[in-house]
Amino acid sequence: MTTVETEGEAVSAGAVSEFPPDLRPLGQVQDSYIVATNADGLWIVDQHVAHERVLFEHHLRQRREMRVEGQRLLLPIIVELKPQQLATFAGIAEELGANGFEVEPFGQRTVAVKTAPAEIRADDVERLLLEILDGVGQEVRALSLDVLRLKIAASVSCHAAIKVNMPLDHNKMAWLLRELGKTECPMACPHGRPIVLRYGLRVIERAFKRI
Amino acid sequence: MTTVETEGEAVSAGAVSEFPPDLRPLGQVQDSYIVATNADGLWIVDQHVAHERVLFEHHLRQRREMRVEGQRLLLPIIVELKPQQLATFAGIAEELGANGFEVEPFGQRTVAVKTAPAEIRADDVERLLLEILDGVGQEVRALSLDVLRLKIAASVSCHAAIKVNMPLDHNKMAWLLRELGKTECPMACPHGRPIVLRYGLRVIERAFKRI
Repeated sequence: MTTVETEGEAVSAGAVSEFPPDLRPLGQVQDSYIVATNADGLWIVDQHVAHERVLFEHHLRQRREMRVEGQRLLLPIIVELKPQQLATFAGIAEELGANGFEVEPFGQRTVAVKTAPAEIRADDVERLLLEILDGVGQEVRALSLDVLRLKIAASVSCHAAIKVNMPLDHNKMAWLLRELGKTECPMACPHGRPIVLRYGLRVIERAFKRI
Repeated sequence: MTTVETEGEAVSAGAVSEFPPDLRPLGQVQDSYIVATNADGLWIVDQHVAHERVLFEHHLRQRREMRVEGQRLLLPIIVELKPQQLATFAGIAEELGANGFEVEPFGQRTVAVKTAPAEIRADDVERLLLEILDGVGQEVRALSLDVLRLKIAASVSCHAAIKVNMPLDHNKMAWLLRELGKTECPMACPHGRPIVLRYGLRVIERAFKRI
């Protein structure tokens, strides 16, 4: 009696155009990974990083066109900042403004967030802002504007993306795969993690000793 | 950009009881491999060998209880045999009879098949009979009755089983997984090929660099 277990093995990527346009979602593993198929075999897509990639490119596009949407909060969120965070904030306040944030100084050590990027839940706004400030940190003077924009877009999209452990219906899965296929870089998330695993048909056939 | 591809790797099997009772079918790859999931991750089941295993154990059980069902053919099928096949046939005719076949000599070099195992399609009867005869071949005198029964059951179940490239609806997939789970040896087909591949949750998480 034999069971066969596979181990993931990273290989260098093919061209972006290799992301298949014809993936058909079958369902989820652990409400976290979308299982899909096409003539090439079986594909597993990490739903969080896939959505993150979609939102990341969308956000960057909006930013380039100066059209990032902010959402006015019902009540401003008061966030206490440490000295380094305050210094960073001063350095990137304008760029934050162009990314859907409206944040104003409010007392000596606090800021008031009045508007946040549209996709972000109100109860996540403070955490997102602090993550952006800490992510930039002391680099604030050295950072190019391009890199700063990438960092902000990555943080916003990570916070706004579908999480793991979330059931998705067939339409949502199909939508996500379709949107992912339209991105410029569908195979890796903004942080460089893989989005897609492929279990090629020949790998499966070999494992079953059919070839 | 990174894509990740997995390679099948055979490892020694666990106990039979390791076949999970709670597999939920998601769909098929290439109308040939059932993709299923449970809390342990992703499973791929070769539908042909899975069904073969189910039929094999069923056939052997029926044989032990002398209850193999034969199906009377509308017209007898006349099969021409080579000398070795004729000799083999003479040696195993009785056992063939206990396995749902009713085959009678018909002329010098031919036999007439009047009844065949119930699951076998009429247009496949000749091929099955020849395969059994050739599979036994010159071993006919050396073979134990037990081994002969295993050989016949393996051939019958292979011919009767669902093929690859056959669409299965959800109920059929669920039925097959359930029946496979009831077999004594759900992990390997009668010829020793694996039936089940497991892509463990931790393997998937590692491939996605989540752990």
